[in-house]
Amino acid sequence: MTGRIATRLAGALAASVLLAVPAMAQFKKAEDAIQYRQSAFTVMANHMGRLAAMAKGEAPFDAAAAQSSARIVDTMAKLPWEGFVPGSDKGKTGAKPALFQNPDDVKKLSQRLNEETAKLVSAAGSLETLRPQVGATGSACKACHDKYREK
Amino acid sequence: MTGRIATRLAGALAASVLLAVPAMAQFKKAEDAIQYRQSAFTVMANHMGRLAAMAKGEAPFDAAAAQSSARIVDTMAKLPWEGFVPGSDKGKTGAKPALFQNPDDVKKLSQRLNEETAKLVSAAGSLETLRPQVGATGSACKACHDKYREK
Repeated sequence: MTGRIATRLAGALAASVLLAVPAMAQFKKAEDAIQYRQSAFTVMANHMGRLAAMAKGEAPFDAAAAQSSARIVDTMAKLPWEGFVPGSDKGKTGAKPALFQNPDDVKKLSQRLNEETAKLVSAAGSLETLRPQVGATGSACKACHDKYREK
Repeated sequence: MTGRIATRLAGALAASVLLAVPAMAQFKKAEDAIQYRQSAFTVMANHMGRLAAMAKGEAPFDAAAAQSSARIVDTMAKLPWEGFVPGSDKGKTGAKPALFQNPDDVKKLSQRLNEETAKLVSAAGSLETLRPQVGATGSACKACHDKYREK
């Protein structure tokens, strides 16, 4: 092994350790990670519910409230993913085992959600633009739930 | 009763109903309100923990991560209060009955928290400014916990 390759390997190893440490360090126990991701989903679902009520005409449209809810949804949509740490497939979770076996697919689905929630923020200023974007965002939620969430 | 007073009373009643309806409409059951406020607190506490770890030197300071966590704390700090709806003093909650009897004091304490979390966002760019502001924000959390949260 040349010194250069050894240095590269050491560098790659150090980088992977550095990447791994912060993610795990956020949660002392797998249970904490489960509670964290569920909490982010709970807040997100509540504000999606408020937007859906406006979109369906069940609640009066309020641009300021819609924009606030859309921003909260967009912020929350970025959070749960780091909570799916190793070991958090057991316990009080509705996540299917398949979720932990398909990290690349979950990442793709979470990126789709993040794209839709960013559009939701832009769309929340008027009911005409909000309505279809609530639908598109809900579809992104559902795409992941259908595959990876217990019924 | 003069017509003018009756009109005023009717107006005040209508305003109070209008103010009450949106807050209640966000939660179908008191249990949902409890879960919502606890979820916001859980996400907030997790990110306060990340900032505290940096402030104490238990985790390396990372300006981007600190700013992201500070923004999440600031967003979360605005949310739990509407979850303290009538009837949500019972059930799976750690809120003391006194919280529901002192809404003005709770509002004052939540405003203090919101002021400190806004400063936290500004302070998160460097460890020197972050450190004291994590302390000040933690004190604002504690001021309310000491009075209104079960041990």
